[in-house]
Amino acid sequence: MAVLKSNSYGKSHVRLTKVTRQGDLHELKEISVHVQLEGDFAACYTHGDNSKIIATDSMKNTVYVLARHHPLDSIESFARHAANHFVGTYPQVAIATVSIHEVPWQRIDVHGKLHNHSFVGGSSERRRCTVTNNRRSILVEAGIEDLLVLKTTQSGFVGFVRDKYTTLKETTDRIFATSVTAKWKYSLPDGNWNRSFDGVRKALLNVFATHDSLAVQQTLYAMGEEALNVCPDISEIELTMPNQHRLLVNLEPFGLSNPNEIFVPTNEPYGLIRGTVSRD
Amino acid sequence: MAVLKSNSYGKSHVRLTKVTRQGDLHELKEISVHVQLEGDFAACYTHGDNSKIIATDSMKNTVYVLARHHPLDSIESFARHAANHFVGTYPQVAIATVSIHEVPWQRIDVHGKLHNHSFVGGSSERRRCTVTNNRRSILVEAGIEDLLVLKTTQSGFVGFVRDKYTTLKETTDRIFATSVTAKWKYSLPDGNWNRSFDGVRKALLNVFATHDSLAVQQTLYAMGEEALNVCPDISEIELTMPNQHRLLVNLEPFGLSNPNEIFVPTNEPYGLIRGTVSRD
Amino acid sequence: MAVLKSNSYGKSHVRLTKVTRQGDLHELKEISVHVQLEGDFAACYTHGDNSKIIATDSMKNTVYVLARHHPLDSIESFARHAANHFVGTYPQVAIATVSIHEVPWQRIDVHGKLHNHSFVGGSSERRRCTVTNNRRSILVEAGIEDLLVLKTTQSGFVGFVRDKYTTLKETTDRIFATSVTAKWKYSLPDGNWNRSFDGVRKALLNVFATHDSLAVQQTLYAMGEEALNVCPDISEIELTMPNQHRLLVNLEPFGLSNPNEIFVPTNEPYGLIRGTVSRD
Amino acid sequence: MAVLKSNSYGKSHVRLTKVTRQGDLHELKEISVHVQLEGDFAACYTHGDNSKIIATDSMKNTVYVLARHHPLDSIESFARHAANHFVGTYPQVAIATVSIHEVPWQRIDVHGKLHNHSFVGGSSERRRCTVTNNRRSILVEAGIEDLLVLKTTQSGFVGFVRDKYTTLKETTDRIFATSVTAKWKYSLPDGNWNRSFDGVRKALLNVFATHDSLAVQQTLYAMGEEALNVCPDISEIELTMPNQHRLLVNLEPFGLSNPNEIFVPTNEPYGLIRGTVSRD
Repeated sequence: MAVLKSNSYGKSHVRLTKVTRQGDLHELKEISVHVQLEGDFAACYTHGDNSKIIATDSMKNTVYVLARHHPLDSIESFARHAANHFVGTYPQVAIATVSIHEVPWQRIDVHGKLHNHSFVGGSSERRRCTVTNNRRSILVEAGIEDLLVLKTTQSGFVGFVRDKYTTLKETTDRIFATSVTAKWKYSLPDGNWNRSFDGVRKALLNVFATHDSLAVQQTLYAMGEEALNVCPDISEIELTMPNQHRLLVNLEPFGLSNPNEIFVPTNEPYGLIRGTVSRD
Repeated sequence: MAVLKSNSYGKSHVRLTKVTRQGDLHELKEISVHVQLEGDFAACYTHGDNSKIIATDSMKNTVYVLARHHPLDSIESFARHAANHFVGTYPQVAIATVSIHEVPWQRIDVHGKLHNHSFVGGSSERRRCTVTNNRRSILVEAGIEDLLVLKTTQSGFVGFVRDKYTTLKETTDRIFATSVTAKWKYSLPDGNWNRSFDGVRKALLNVFATHDSLAVQQTLYAMGEEALNVCPDISEIELTMPNQHRLLVNLEPFGLSNPNEIFVPTNEPYGLIRGTVSRD
Repeated sequence: MAVLKSNSYGKSHVRLTKVTRQGDLHELKEISVHVQLEGDFAACYTHGDNSKIIATDSMKNTVYVLARHHPLDSIESFARHAANHFVGTYPQVAIATVSIHEVPWQRIDVHGKLHNHSFVGGSSERRRCTVTNNRRSILVEAGIEDLLVLKTTQSGFVGFVRDKYTTLKETTDRIFATSVTAKWKYSLPDGNWNRSFDGVRKALLNVFATHDSLAVQQTLYAMGEEALNVCPDISEIELTMPNQHRLLVNLEPFGLSNPNEIFVPTNEPYGLIRGTVSRD
Repeated sequence: MAVLKSNSYGKSHVRLTKVTRQGDLHELKEISVHVQLEGDFAACYTHGDNSKIIATDSMKNTVYVLARHHPLDSIESFARHAANHFVGTYPQVAIATVSIHEVPWQRIDVHGKLHNHSFVGGSSERRRCTVTNNRRSILVEAGIEDLLVLKTTQSGFVGFVRDKYTTLKETTDRIFATSVTAKWKYSLPDGNWNRSFDGVRKALLNVFATHDSLAVQQTLYAMGEEALNVCPDISEIELTMPNQHRLLVNLEPFGLSNPNEIFVPTNEPYGLIRGTVSRD
C-alpha cells in the first residue's frame, strides 16, 4: 500500500579548518560541509539492504581527504570538486548536492599591521554555496546568510492598506534593520567565485546604505537589481529580509517627547519579506 | 533588465497564549503563528507603491483578533480560519499560507491529581501545521518537530559499501538516537485533526521503539508506512531523521573493555536521512 | 608589578551516555560533566611550566574511565567519586569541583507498557549537582535548571510603589509563568540523593501549582520553605525565577473585550527574582 | 523554621537603541540593561507585602526615561547614572547593580567612505560593564565577552603530567583558538571609560597575536599583565578562556600525511582556563 516517493541522505555539518602556509604567512579557512545524495538507495529504506549505501561516516572521511589536496581557494570550487567526486565515484548516485558555509576570520591588526598567523572572528555572517551535480549539469549557487544591517533614517512606510485591523501609524522616518540572506544562481559552472561574491556583497551593502526606502520590499528589489548589475555571471538572486523592528518608545506618560531617539529592538514578531529578482 | 520573478511577505512568530475557562478548569493553548501572502504586490517592490500592502503589523493584529473568538481547539482549524480570512478579506491576495507551532504544556500532577490551572512545559517537541489557501483549494499539512527518541539496542548497520574512504566498523548492536521531524499531507481540508495527530505521533513512537533496525533509512520507512496505516486521512508523510551518533568510547588505552556501555554523544557531524512515504 | 591572584582550570561539557543492562531491561543515563581544579598551578601561568598540569584531555579520559565501573545510580554519587579521585590522585590539587547535568529520558509507552530499551527525551529541564572536595570537607549541592511552569490564575500583583515611573496596572488575576532554577546544599556528604531530589522537585511543583500568589517573591519563598520542610537533609535552597511575562493584548482598537483570554508571551525584558531560604 | 537568608530582584534584558544626530551624522548605540536591587524587600517574600516593591516594569520605564537625556557616551557612565538613580530615589534600596551589554555596530564603507547613518553588525563580541552602588561606594567593572581569536602557530603544550589517564601527545605547534571573556575592576568611580576599554581590548589582542605560548594559562596571564600595564586605572582583571580545540585529523588510514593542515573544530568537551591578575 505504501511506496517510497522520494529519498535522500547524507552527512551534515562536517567542520574543518585548513591552514595553508606560504613561509610565515598563514592562510586560514574554516568551513562546514553538508553532503546530500540521491540515487539508487530505495532498497535500504524498504528492505534494509545497505549494499549500495555509502556510510555517512565515509562521506565525512572523504571531505577531509579531498580538502587535503584541494587549495580551498573558494568554497564554490571545493563544493564542485566534492560533488564531482561523489557522482564520479559511485554509479548509484544520481544527484550529489554539496553545501558549504564559511566561517569568517580576519587578521588581527597589531600596531597597524595585519598579523601573519593570528585572527579575530565572531561575526554571524556566513558566506555559503550549494553545488548540485545531477550527471547532466552542474548548478552553482552562492549566497550570504545573516548579514546584519541597520540604517537610522531614509526609510519610511506610508500609503499602505488601512482597515479595521490597522493600528500602525504611517512614518516617513524610521529605523530599518534587517538580517539579509541572499542566494544567487550562477549561469555557468565556472567563474571567478571570490570576485563575484565580493561584488555582490558590496552591492547589497551599498544599496542598503544609500537607498531612500519607501518599503522593505522596495529596498530588497533595488538590492537584487544592483547585484545583477554588478555581476554579469549571476542569473537570479533571491533575497530574504526579516524586518527587525525598532519600536519608538512612548515617553509621554513620563512627560517627555521622543523625537526618534529612543527605540526598543524586538525579536518577534517580525515582518518577513522575500523576493527573487532575475534577468529579463 | 531586472524583473521581479516571485515574491511573498508576511509576519512571523506571532506568539499568543489563550486561556479558556470552563468554571475552575482552565484550558491553555500557546502557539506561534506565521502568515505569508502572495499576490498582487509587485508594485511595492518595483516602485515603492504600498497601496495594496497589508502591513505585517495588521497581520499580527488580525491573528489576535481572530484568536479571540476562535475556540483554538486545534492549530489546523485555526490556521485554516486565518488563511480563509486573508484570502476572503483582501482581493489582492492570491495565496495565503498560515503555519502554526504549538508549545506543549502538561497539567501538573499534585498528589496524583492533574491540576485545574497549573502546567509544566519545557519539551522541545512541537506540533505544527501549515494551511495553504490558493482560492481554488485548501491544503492542510501537519507535523511534529524535534521529537527526541533513543533506543539502546535493536539497531545495527552492516553490509554497506567498503572502499578506501571507509573506516566505520560494522555493528549489529548500536545506540540509535534521532530527533524526528515529520510532515504529512491530509487528503481533505476537513478532519478530526487532534485524533489524526495523536494517531500519527503514537505510530511513529511505537515503530521506533519496536522496530529491529538494519539502517536508519529502514526504520524511517517503517515509521512512515505505519503512519499511513493508522491514519487513512493522510496521503503522504515526509520524515527527516538526523542520526545523533553515540560513539563507543575506546577504553583500551586504559586497560578496560567497553561492552557497549560508555558512549560519547556528539552533535556534529551528523547523518541526515530523509524520505517521503506515500500511498500507492 | 602584576601577580596571579587566583586561578583554576578544567574540562567542561564532557558528555557521556551509559547503558546498564539487567537482561532485556536497559537503564539509560546521559550526563555532561564539568571538572575544575584549583591548586599548585601558578608556575604554568607565570612561567609556562606545565610539570604539575594535568591535561584537560586527561580529565576527559578520567571521566570515561571512572564511569565504566561506577553504577551512575545518581549524579551526586558519581560527582563525589570523581572529585575524590582528583584530590586523591594528584597532590598538587587543593580543591576539585565536579558538576554534572543530567539529560532526562523517559521510557516510551507502547500500548500502555513502558518499553525496555526505547526512550523519549527533549525536555529543557536538567537535574544538576556540584560536589566540591577541598581535602578537609566535601560539599554536595544539587539542583534543577529550566523547570518551566505556568499557572493561569491565583496570581496577582497589587500594592507596589506607584510613582512617576509607574505605568503597570494592578491586577488580582494574571498568568504567572517562570523557568525555575533551584540550587540547594546538603548538610552531609552522604544521603539518598535520588529520594531527596524527587522530594524537592515535587515540593516545588506542588507549591507553585497551589499557592495563592501575591508576588513572584512570595511564591518563591513558599516554594523554598516547602523544600526545606519535605527534605530534612538540605540546609538551604536558592531559587531564581525569571518572570516570563504574558501580556494581556489590548483588543479595544478592534471593538473587542479581552477578559483575560488572549495574551502575548514575551522573552524580554523579564523580571528576575532571587531568594535564598535557609533553616533558622 | 525557615528564614529568608538573602534576596534580590530586578529587570533583565531591557534593550534599547539610541540615535543621536549631529546634522546628517548619526550616532547609534544599542544596549541591553540589567537592573538588580537589594534592600528592604523581605516582607514581600515572607508576607506578600508589596508596599516597598518597585515594580520591575517601572525599572524598565526608568531605563528608557534616563536614556532620553543621558548622552550614552559610554555604557559605564550610563550604568553609574542609573545605579545612582535607584539608590537616590528609593530609600529601601541598599545596593543597586546595573549591568549593560553593548551590541557592536560599524559604519558601512561605501566607496571608501564611512556612511553617515548606515551600519553593519553581527559580531558576537560584547562590551559590558557592571556598576554597583551600595550607598557607601561605587564600584565600576568593565569587560569583554566572546572575543573570538585564533592563531595557527606559536602555541605548544609539552611537559605536562603523564600518567595512566594520559593519551594526549605533546606538541610544539598547534592551533590555539579561544573565546576571550575578560572582566576588570577600575580603582576609581571616574575615568575615561572608552579610552580604557580600547586600550585593554587592544592589549589583549596584541598579546594573544604575538605571544609564544607554552600553555593557554601562560598566554592568559601575559594578556592580563599587559592589560594592567597599558591601563593604570584598572586594579585587577579576570580572564576566562575556553580552549576551543582544533583536532588534527588522522589521514593515515587514507595513505595521506597531515602536516598540520587539516583540523576538526570541536565545541565540546572544552578546556576551561581561568585566572585573575592583579597589581602587586
